[in-house]
Amino acid sequence: MNKLPDEKAILAAAGRIKRHINDTPVLTSRNLDELSGANLYFKCENFQKAGAFKSRGAVNTVFLLSKDELANGVCTHSSGNHAAALSRAAALRGTKAYIVMPENSSKVKIEAVNYYGGEITFCKPNLESRELTLNQVQQNTSALEVHPYNDYRIIAGQATAALELIKSVIPLDVIMAPVGGGGLLSGTALSTFYFSSETKVIAAEPKGADDAYRSFISESFVPSENPNTIADGLLTSLGTLTFPIILDHVDTILTVGEESIIKAMKLIWERMKIIIEPSSAVPFAAVLENKNIFAGKKTGIIISGGNVDLDKLPWIKK
Amino acid sequence: MNKLPDEKAILAAAGRIKRHINDTPVLTSRNLDELSGANLYFKCENFQKAGAFKSRGAVNTVFLLSKDELANGVCTHSSGNHAAALSRAAALRGTKAYIVMPENSSKVKIEAVNYYGGEITFCKPNLESRELTLNQVQQNTSALEVHPYNDYRIIAGQATAALELIKSVIPLDVIMAPVGGGGLLSGTALSTFYFSSETKVIAAEPKGADDAYRSFISESFVPSENPNTIADGLLTSLGTLTFPIILDHVDTILTVGEESIIKAMKLIWERMKIIIEPSSAVPFAAVLENKNIFAGKKTGIIISGGNVDLDKLPWIKK
Repeated sequence: MNKLPDEKAILAAAGRIKRHINDTPVLTSRNLDELSGANLYFKCENFQKAGAFKSRGAVNTVFLLSKDELANGVCTHSSGNHAAALSRAAALRGTKAYIVMPENSSKVKIEAVNYYGGEITFCKPNLESRELTLNQVQQNTSALEVHPYNDYRIIAGQATAALELIKSVIPLDVIMAPVGGGGLLSGTALSTFYFSSETKVIAAEPKGADDAYRSFISESFVPSENPNTIADGLLTSLGTLTFPIILDHVDTILTVGEESIIKAMKLIWERMKIIIEPSSAVPFAAVLENKNIFAGKKTGIIISGGNVDLDKLPWIKK
Repeated sequence: MNKLPDEKAILAAAGRIKRHINDTPVLTSRNLDELSGANLYFKCENFQKAGAFKSRGAVNTVFLLSKDELANGVCTHSSGNHAAALSRAAALRGTKAYIVMPENSSKVKIEAVNYYGGEITFCKPNLESRELTLNQVQQNTSALEVHPYNDYRIIAGQATAALELIKSVIPLDVIMAPVGGGGLLSGTALSTFYFSSETKVIAAEPKGADDAYRSFISESFVPSENPNTIADGLLTSLGTLTFPIILDHVDTILTVGEESIIKAMKLIWERMKIIIEPSSAVPFAAVLENKNIFAGKKTGIIISGGNVDLDKLPWIKK
């Protein structure tokens, strides 16, 4: 699939991944509705296989590959949820996943890759070392690279989360997603455009990693440089495939500070009794900081994942 | 209702509370099944109104009271989930709830009572002061006492959690609940006896508060003296109404140590991405410590609640 996913491609992805993916619940909270003034519908991808929406894109991509393409396994560099999701997807097709991870990756993320049978090669924690190490792994193994977001098959997979949300709550005024590399956001924007065209798409991004916001308002690509945020899933730059979709189909990108993110995360834990990772709290933080935009609006929020190091919580100072 | 709840009384309670209670989800986890060797079905009362199963009994009781009985409000002493549940139930009937709470109650529990409009009177953290203060409150207000567990209306309400679980997973080999005062356990045992008579009822209790275990094996009431456990919902003694039901209809009571409880709690947070309180982790801890009993068994576990002070997690040493 080398073209922008159309309606059919997203529906085909949904069918393809169905057996290996959870149709995650959509939860509501009267308490958080009262607090925000909005009507919130949380699409809980923290309950997704491997703990994040990333399983959707990884399964879609790996199941589109032929036996020949899979013969030598797949590979990627990722410090996060894509690594575990790709390891799991590869195992489902009976092939290997080679994962390049920064040596300072969290224990939880390393364990998740191990659990799904991924083979880890550690590298220094910078993009240069990640790419260099991945090149070496590819040369040694001839494994096929599966990029975490800059791939139309990945985007079509991530789009299925919004598709499910749209099917279960009709009609939404707004759909929100966090933005890092833009895989989830561009998929969300496409599904909204095709299946719920009256619904606005509002993205949310940490102020400390606001490259997507700056790219969006200047309409020209701004790379992520020295990002600094607790939302560790949102550190990367937009991709050449995700950015144009975002420009075309996203209405607004809102940015929020670190304290807002931590407060929003803790509120969701406390009131909804679900565990979400910091990146997932960014859209709800944006709602709380912009109550005028969301007042009385039926607002879907994609909770991107729930992989948190429970030994290090941002509101507990050791 | 001054007699042991029969089948009809439990079904009536289910109908009575339906509009004001969540039919909470039953979640499964492949990961925890692999780890335990059992097939686990978690009935998630952490997603219940006010964050715990206690809302069932409180709503059932308050909605059985006449307008005259409610005229001066209701009252109770409770440091925990019954306090918030009763406050909420009273508000639903437009009456007041007077809550006697130990002065060392956690901030989260105090806030919950305030949120639902309960009026708090603080007392010293011992049973004598709790009862004395409650007497004073009753004299001042003429409010009607609603006991947290030693009341057949409460027991019938708590029984509806197991009823829902039994309806959604057929047939279970085992149903588990934690035991403190015995309201949840006796209700669970009655529902299992009436609606799924082939299913065994296995209770779980902290070793540091094992009065129910000792009462059960000696078949004579042993009070809870100086209980010491992180499972703060399980500190109380059995009641004169709950103990006979437990003797008649519970198969076994298993006890577990503190480290097991904390480990089980963290595993559920980490793998299932849900927030449960320590008391709720006690049955799963018992499964992990007694794998032979549960191997391959379809085991329902009632997760009693999710009200945790997120600033003080037992696995994080400050």
